[in-house]
Amino acid sequence: MYVVKSPLSDDADLKIVAEALQGALVDLLDLSLVAKQIHWNIVGPRFRSIHLQLDDVVATARTHSDTVAERAATLGVPPDGRAATVATGSGIGVTPEGWVRDADAVGTIVDALAAVITRMRERVAATGKPDPVTQDILIGITADLEKHHWMFQAENG
Amino acid sequence: MYVVKSPLSDDADLKIVAEALQGALVDLLDLSLVAKQIHWNIVGPRFRSIHLQLDDVVATARTHSDTVAERAATLGVPPDGRAATVATGSGIGVTPEGWVRDADAVGTIVDALAAVITRMRERVAATGKPDPVTQDILIGITADLEKHHWMFQAENG
Amino acid sequence: MYVVKSPLSDDADLKIVAEALQGALVDLLDLSLVAKQIHWNIVGPRFRSIHLQLDDVVATARTHSDTVAERAATLGVPPDGRAATVATGSGIGVTPEGWVRDADAVGTIVDALAAVITRMRERVAATGKPDPVTQDILIGITADLEKHHWMFQAENG
Amino acid sequence: MYVVKSPLSDDADLKIVAEALQGALVDLLDLSLVAKQIHWNIVGPRFRSIHLQLDDVVATARTHSDTVAERAATLGVPPDGRAATVATGSGIGVTPEGWVRDADAVGTIVDALAAVITRMRERVAATGKPDPVTQDILIGITADLEKHHWMFQAENG
Amino acid sequence: MYVVKSPLSDDADLKIVAEALQGALVDLLDLSLVAKQIHWNIVGPRFRSIHLQLDDVVATARTHSDTVAERAATLGVPPDGRAATVATGSGIGVTPEGWVRDADAVGTIVDALAAVITRMRERVAATGKPDPVTQDILIGITADLEKHHWMFQAENG
Amino acid sequence: MYVVKSPLSDDADLKIVAEALQGALVDLLDLSLVAKQIHWNIVGPRFRSIHLQLDDVVATARTHSDTVAERAATLGVPPDGRAATVATGSGIGVTPEGWVRDADAVGTIVDALAAVITRMRERVAATGKPDPVTQDILIGITADLEKHHWMFQAENG
Amino acid sequence: MYVVKSPLSDDADLKIVAEALQGALVDLLDLSLVAKQIHWNIVGPRFRSIHLQLDDVVATARTHSDTVAERAATLGVPPDGRAATVATGSGIGVTPEGWVRDADAVGTIVDALAAVITRMRERVAATGKPDPVTQDILIGITADLEKHHWMFQAENG
Amino acid sequence: MYVVKSPLSDDADLKIVAEALQGALVDLLDLSLVAKQIHWNIVGPRFRSIHLQLDDVVATARTHSDTVAERAATLGVPPDGRAATVATGSGIGVTPEGWVRDADAVGTIVDALAAVITRMRERVAATGKPDPVTQDILIGITADLEKHHWMFQAENG
Amino acid sequence: MYVVKSPLSDDADLKIVAEALQGALVDLLDLSLVAKQIHWNIVGPRFRSIHLQLDDVVATARTHSDTVAERAATLGVPPDGRAATVATGSGIGVTPEGWVRDADAVGTIVDALAAVITRMRERVAATGKPDPVTQDILIGITADLEKHHWMFQAENG
Amino acid sequence: MYVVKSPLSDDADLKIVAEALQGALVDLLDLSLVAKQIHWNIVGPRFRSIHLQLDDVVATARTHSDTVAERAATLGVPPDGRAATVATGSGIGVTPEGWVRDADAVGTIVDALAAVITRMRERVAATGKPDPVTQDILIGITADLEKHHWMFQAENG
Amino acid sequence: MYVVKSPLSDDADLKIVAEALQGALVDLLDLSLVAKQIHWNIVGPRFRSIHLQLDDVVATARTHSDTVAERAATLGVPPDGRAATVATGSGIGVTPEGWVRDADAVGTIVDALAAVITRMRERVAATGKPDPVTQDILIGITADLEKHHWMFQAENG
Amino acid sequence: MYVVKSPLSDDADLKIVAEALQGALVDLLDLSLVAKQIHWNIVGPRFRSIHLQLDDVVATARTHSDTVAERAATLGVPPDGRAATVATGSGIGVTPEGWVRDADAVGTIVDALAAVITRMRERVAATGKPDPVTQDILIGITADLEKHHWMFQAENG
Repeated sequence: MYVVKSPLSDDADLKIVAEALQGALVDLLDLSLVAKQIHWNIVGPRFRSIHLQLDDVVATARTHSDTVAERAATLGVPPDGRAATVATGSGIGVTPEGWVRDADAVGTIVDALAAVITRMRERVAATGKPDPVTQDILIGITADLEKHHWMFQAENG
Repeated sequence: MYVVKSPLSDDADLKIVAEALQGALVDLLDLSLVAKQIHWNIVGPRFRSIHLQLDDVVATARTHSDTVAERAATLGVPPDGRAATVATGSGIGVTPEGWVRDADAVGTIVDALAAVITRMRERVAATGKPDPVTQDILIGITADLEKHHWMFQAENG
Repeated sequence: MYVVKSPLSDDADLKIVAEALQGALVDLLDLSLVAKQIHWNIVGPRFRSIHLQLDDVVATARTHSDTVAERAATLGVPPDGRAATVATGSGIGVTPEGWVRDADAVGTIVDALAAVITRMRERVAATGKPDPVTQDILIGITADLEKHHWMFQAENG
Repeated sequence: MYVVKSPLSDDADLKIVAEALQGALVDLLDLSLVAKQIHWNIVGPRFRSIHLQLDDVVATARTHSDTVAERAATLGVPPDGRAATVATGSGIGVTPEGWVRDADAVGTIVDALAAVITRMRERVAATGKPDPVTQDILIGITADLEKHHWMFQAENG
Repeated sequence: MYVVKSPLSDDADLKIVAEALQGALVDLLDLSLVAKQIHWNIVGPRFRSIHLQLDDVVATARTHSDTVAERAATLGVPPDGRAATVATGSGIGVTPEGWVRDADAVGTIVDALAAVITRMRERVAATGKPDPVTQDILIGITADLEKHHWMFQAENG
Repeated sequence: MYVVKSPLSDDADLKIVAEALQGALVDLLDLSLVAKQIHWNIVGPRFRSIHLQLDDVVATARTHSDTVAERAATLGVPPDGRAATVATGSGIGVTPEGWVRDADAVGTIVDALAAVITRMRERVAATGKPDPVTQDILIGITADLEKHHWMFQAENG
Repeated sequence: MYVVKSPLSDDADLKIVAEALQGALVDLLDLSLVAKQIHWNIVGPRFRSIHLQLDDVVATARTHSDTVAERAATLGVPPDGRAATVATGSGIGVTPEGWVRDADAVGTIVDALAAVITRMRERVAATGKPDPVTQDILIGITADLEKHHWMFQAENG
Repeated sequence: MYVVKSPLSDDADLKIVAEALQGALVDLLDLSLVAKQIHWNIVGPRFRSIHLQLDDVVATARTHSDTVAERAATLGVPPDGRAATVATGSGIGVTPEGWVRDADAVGTIVDALAAVITRMRERVAATGKPDPVTQDILIGITADLEKHHWMFQAENG
Repeated sequence: MYVVKSPLSDDADLKIVAEALQGALVDLLDLSLVAKQIHWNIVGPRFRSIHLQLDDVVATARTHSDTVAERAATLGVPPDGRAATVATGSGIGVTPEGWVRDADAVGTIVDALAAVITRMRERVAATGKPDPVTQDILIGITADLEKHHWMFQAENG
Repeated sequence: MYVVKSPLSDDADLKIVAEALQGALVDLLDLSLVAKQIHWNIVGPRFRSIHLQLDDVVATARTHSDTVAERAATLGVPPDGRAATVATGSGIGVTPEGWVRDADAVGTIVDALAAVITRMRERVAATGKPDPVTQDILIGITADLEKHHWMFQAENG
Repeated sequence: MYVVKSPLSDDADLKIVAEALQGALVDLLDLSLVAKQIHWNIVGPRFRSIHLQLDDVVATARTHSDTVAERAATLGVPPDGRAATVATGSGIGVTPEGWVRDADAVGTIVDALAAVITRMRERVAATGKPDPVTQDILIGITADLEKHHWMFQAENG
Repeated sequence: MYVVKSPLSDDADLKIVAEALQGALVDLLDLSLVAKQIHWNIVGPRFRSIHLQLDDVVATARTHSDTVAERAATLGVPPDGRAATVATGSGIGVTPEGWVRDADAVGTIVDALAAVITRMRERVAATGKPDPVTQDILIGITADLEKHHWMFQAENG
């Protein structure tokens, strides 16, 4: 079944862009799950402050996972955001289970954001030539993730 | 590290309620991922209508996953909503990858909802005695899920 | 045509719950019509105050009639809210036609609410075992109706 | 008890206008009940779309039933919107009970709207001379009903 | 200085419509002042209820005074809403000064509304031929005033 | 393909009303384009004030073009709002290209409004007998256009 | 009939404050009428800008007339805001009838504001000792009026 | 522990202002409890009207209790709003328990407001010299309380 | 004076439920005062975060004190929420006066919440049989209080 | 008359960018007219769903036509959005007149979007070097158009 | 060029008030810049909490700088809020550049607020006689600044 | 103290981007001060129109100064927005003090915008290679500034 005609006519271009978007989707969905996991399990004097700040990351991750998944569909590529795909394909390391102290929580989310940002910048570099429209979307997402990255670093500064 | 004192003093009661909440969390997180997966991949004459209706399920699933996770924390039990936990523990069957026709999309979400509802009703029955507060929360969630279940069945009626 | 599969597998249970919901639907629809009837025909020094208070009853009755009708559909039972069904099945006595003085208006709505509340409490008692989800919905409706009942009694106190 | 002095001094004029408004009230209340009845019982691939569209009709019918009832009171004529009056006086044919397929649902509401529109246009013609203020209100209602009539016809077109 | 070209080319027509609008302006401005006067000076058990209801009349009178003044300007006729013009040209009788009991307050506003409605219906009759656009505006204003008239009569019913 | 049954049974009546609505649609669509054209190209000391005022005209023209097009469909007449139809059928004269000084901009829009108003008043006169519902819609549109006409005349007064 | 007990026990104090408030009421009501009169009759290149700015004065005048009237009632003094009282007691000079050019409109409102401000500053000085609560209210009103005064002066600067 | 440095350097001044604010806090907290007590227990024909009006007093009392408590903290004085402090220090007389008829309810709240106003005016007089900022806050609170005082007196007028 | 007829006909049942509601009212009112007391007096590095979090408790306590008081009235039992009743009947220990360090503030509110929760769970157990409607209300309140209890424990974790 | 100084100093660059923006303006205005045309004339089982979806396209096209026209003015180039310019210069093929079945409606808008997207991607490529600011605007517009393109393809998938 | 006539006729009075307002303007603009500087450069465990709290100070400072600048203009005195004027005339000490730890950030803003408050209280004292309207504005600003001062002191308490 | 790890690993790249952002910050803060200065001091017939338009510039400048300052922090570079830095480093020429006529006000802001735009375009060119994320932010800011530049030029056209 071939339903959505891609605005990208070159197959090599499409392959590069499709991989970038599928990778971004998995990273962002995992980021939303990781941020919620810490949001629920954090303890310590900064509980309320970090608990709320993590929900800002969740909102960013959910919004942008929708953006990249729908961009993939727009290019004729069916996105894959199923749990097993996320569990195996994410660029974020394993989050420990159970209660987590606030400083550790900040460290965990800083590492998660750093991992996603590194891969996102590679995707920005890769997509510029084959599809500047996708690149522009990924640039905007990177800007948002890097801002969260600063804010959590400043927390533990 | 033991931080949150449970309002439930009986260990056996707490164990039953904790399992019910952890199970509900995994089911609801997976439901949110499955509904989004179909939301992105659906094709066919009912695209827009089902695409929007699936986002109502996503909203329900996200809201209630937060409710049950925070209820677990409230009872002194750290919730686990990580991707690998969801991928292995969910009661929902595997969703096929790629584009999905609208009638199949409706069938998939009806099955997913039915699977979650069956388990949720068991949790309602199990938690009434050990913790009526948790039971009341699970009853409210079940009511919402069953309403979605009706609406998608009516779609394919 | 059998379209919506009920989450209640036991036929006897389903019959009890279905009757409770159908009865509640008829009572609530009639309550919305009676409250509007008095809302339009009331005269006397308390006109504006009672005129507005009756619209709060209308809002409650319309919202909850939707809730019980959709709960019936959710259980696989088609609800019946047609005018003739309401006219013959309602538990509320006949409202006199024409202008009504404010104190009489309050008395009429107190009686109407009392009639519905009595039947609603019987439905709460009947549905607890066969379907605690439906029971929980009916309990919430009863709480709202009883609050209106107090307020109108206090008016004529 | 004669409370509200009519701005219409001519008894024959008042009788014509009063009958038009009372007739409109009954038709609009029944329309709101019929539209809700189908809203709850519809099944088929267009479930969500028609389910929502019917609630637009309910909103129109409820708003305008209030308008005509209060216009009658304004003219010194107590309106009658009780269930039995609606059940016996409505210009809309009997709606079948039970689940209804989407195409049949559309047909039913098209017929109901057509029946009300025909009578409403007669009321517009009758009230112009005795009371242009009432006529202007009925013209506005007719415009809204005819727009719904088009939209549902277009659905089954 | 002749600045605004009228869409009405016939001088006799324009004269009729201009007088209707100028008269309506004066009546509506005075109605807003009278309703505020009673709003401030009312005492008695219905203080709060009538105090609020009178502000609904003020809102209607202010909105519609703007409508008719701007309609006059639209027809090339400069409107006159100065205090002295209102004090001498209004169709409403003199309001007594000082505190006013609630039942008297209702009586005063019923009389004021009745006086304006009578003149407004004459304006509706006069403007239909020369300018149906102005007539339609005056019909809408009359409908609003008559609704207030009913509600205050019902208060003293 | 004949899909929408007209509430107007008389063919001659329908023809008159259909022409009025199609003519109004073309005029209003062109008015929205002309007002936007001046909105973008205006220069001079009154730039911001007129720039904003022109967007009020655009809003009126867009809203009412939707109203008349949907009224035509409601009567069973498919409306035609395509660019070529607008370019050839509009009653508004040609707008010069390029920058336009503010006083000229006001003059241009005054002329455009005057042209549409003249034709709209003819349509009001023509439709009263065959369809008072359509006439009422056209009267309301005329009132809005004439108000804009006054305001722009007052600008250049 | 003596209904509202004043929080000011000294009769001489009360007399001073009552006169200040009654005077402020009359000035503010007249200001609202004058500003509306110019709002409707202004013509010239600054029509839209001054037309809108005048409505800001109307809003201020209406809000504060309510404040001072209710403050008088609060002190046990029935306020008088009837048209004849305003027409004879206002401190604002007579506004000419008919169209008014924009620069003249600005001049008229500057003069009206200046007249009210002078009297309001006298009231601020007079009420400080007998009732600092009333003085504080009058100071806030003066601040608002003086701000309008600056803005209209700047317009004609 | 001395944490917040007061902007008032003179100890005598600070003592006067601190006592005024602590007294105001206790009075306002008790006023909020008394108004709620009557809000719940009122019966009689004016139930709804007074029930709502009392909640306006509650809103005023709660907002201003926050204002004065935080003003005390701002001046380096820890406020005391505990139940026992309120129960023993309030200037309001004892409210009877149980149902209260509407006219009595109005009398009770008029007395409560009068008691608080008298003390508040003494605080206004006392704080002017030592801290005009606090005085200005107390003046604003007094204005609001006196307005409620008028409205409830007018109710029983 | 016996005004409100209880929907509970059994006196023993009513007594149990009335005591539960009156107890809940006193606890919730005191909780609102205690949370405000700490909200104003807290100092330390977590000032802003806990200051805001305490206002969430105030909001919960105020909303639910209204709910239980009006539920008591609904059952025909006049609620008692006067300061002296709260001061002597509350289940919360005495809060120390003066500034309080942030960690101590958290400890105080955790203890206060724990005390109320224990009593509230007893009320849930007691009311299930005599009045499931009241029980359902108390279950919802308990869920909210326990959630606050978790969040403040996590703060000091 | 040369009024707006361009931030682009190179004439060749300006020419390229000006042509891109003028072309985009014409395409987007025509897209808004075409989408409205189908919005009004569509019939068939998907009427409501596609009718609403087309208005999303209208909103996109209207917003972005404003953006590109104002960007042209910003660069010192007067935009041309008159009806005749649109009718002759659009890249979209002719839309057939009269009623259109839903599947055909979807096909028509897919083709229209495809035509505009192809030209828009050429404009993105052409403007990158002469003016990256304009290019960034066109990239954002292309992303929105391609998303609509996917959604309508998925409808007919 | 002398454009705005001052409501203060005495030159000495005007000079005092003008200096107070110009001084307040410079202090408030610098406060807004200092608070933003720390908002951007803060690091440490309280990052998010203080980062947000500083934006509350920015909002206060921006709003009130507008208030005092426009009050100066109202009095006929052109305000000066240029960067160089702020840099040389502010009463706030120099803020160090670069990252700042959270406790130091709080100390810096406490000192800045204290400096502004001292000068603002002198302005309150100076302006009471020459212009009570300006004094009232400055009192309100002082109240807001002192509240921020308390909150930041409590942070470091 | 080195707290925020930059996502840019190359020092030369970071230096270029840091200078661009610090320069943009200074320019935008000064632009906000200059626009406010003119906003307060403008006189002449276009007072209100330009007064409001300048606040649009202030809003843009404030929002974007926050964006670039936080982007600098995100890259590990502490931003400097202190008054003295702005006073000495801004690219905008000196604004004259005192009242300014409207045409001169427009000229001043056109020049200020032009100066910032020129430097901003250089920053866009410089940052593309070292950090496309920062470049994308600067492109968006440039688009907004150039739009204001056009609008003020059109004012003086």
